[in-house]
Amino acid sequence: MLVMEWTIQEQHIAEQAFNRAYCREIGALTDLVRERAQAVTSIQDIWQLHDFLSARRHEIDGKYDYDYPSLMFVFANLIKDGWLALEELEGLGSDKLAKIHALTRM
Amino acid sequence: MLVMEWTIQEQHIAEQAFNRAYCREIGALTDLVRERAQAVTSIQDIWQLHDFLSARRHEIDGKYDYDYPSLMFVFANLIKDGWLALEELEGLGSDKLAKIHALTRM
Repeated sequence: MLVMEWTIQEQHIAEQAFNRAYCREIGALTDLVRERAQAVTSIQDIWQLHDFLSARRHEIDGKYDYDYPSLMFVFANLIKDGWLALEELEGLGSDKLAKIHALTRM
Repeated sequence: MLVMEWTIQEQHIAEQAFNRAYCREIGALTDLVRERAQAVTSIQDIWQLHDFLSARRHEIDGKYDYDYPSLMFVFANLIKDGWLALEELEGLGSDKLAKIHALTRM
């Protein structure tokens, strides 16, 4: 799926949905970091928080790659993880929506 | 400086001082982590907290090595960093105290 196959309107919808999911996930992560940090009482807790942040950084860095060839996989994962609803992609071509929907079931 | 050169009494004093410094530094780190985490509002803040923890973990893992041959260097560094006072090592041989004192000035 090349960039040329996404219309300007689709690109706009995709960007908005992508940013929305990103803000949701980062907002939830921010709350979680504060909550976990408040519960820190020992060095083991601190290093567990560090391990948690290492894993999330790796995951988030890899996940939010705004790249058209892989965007449908990205959206499917965001839907599976609960950061986006398929309805928020309304306006994309039905072929794309069907593919994303199918990918969420894998 | 081999382990044999530390008397039982000196080993006891050293262990107590070492543990005291460790508890102080970890206590301060715990407070700092909570404070920094409370101020987190963006993904950049979260990754800065992660970088901070990575650096502290590396530093603390290397620093608190209870190993007699290097213990005087460890104590000198703890004194320089403010986690221990030279007076808390009272009871060690005067040769050791002089060496630690000299190392804190380097």
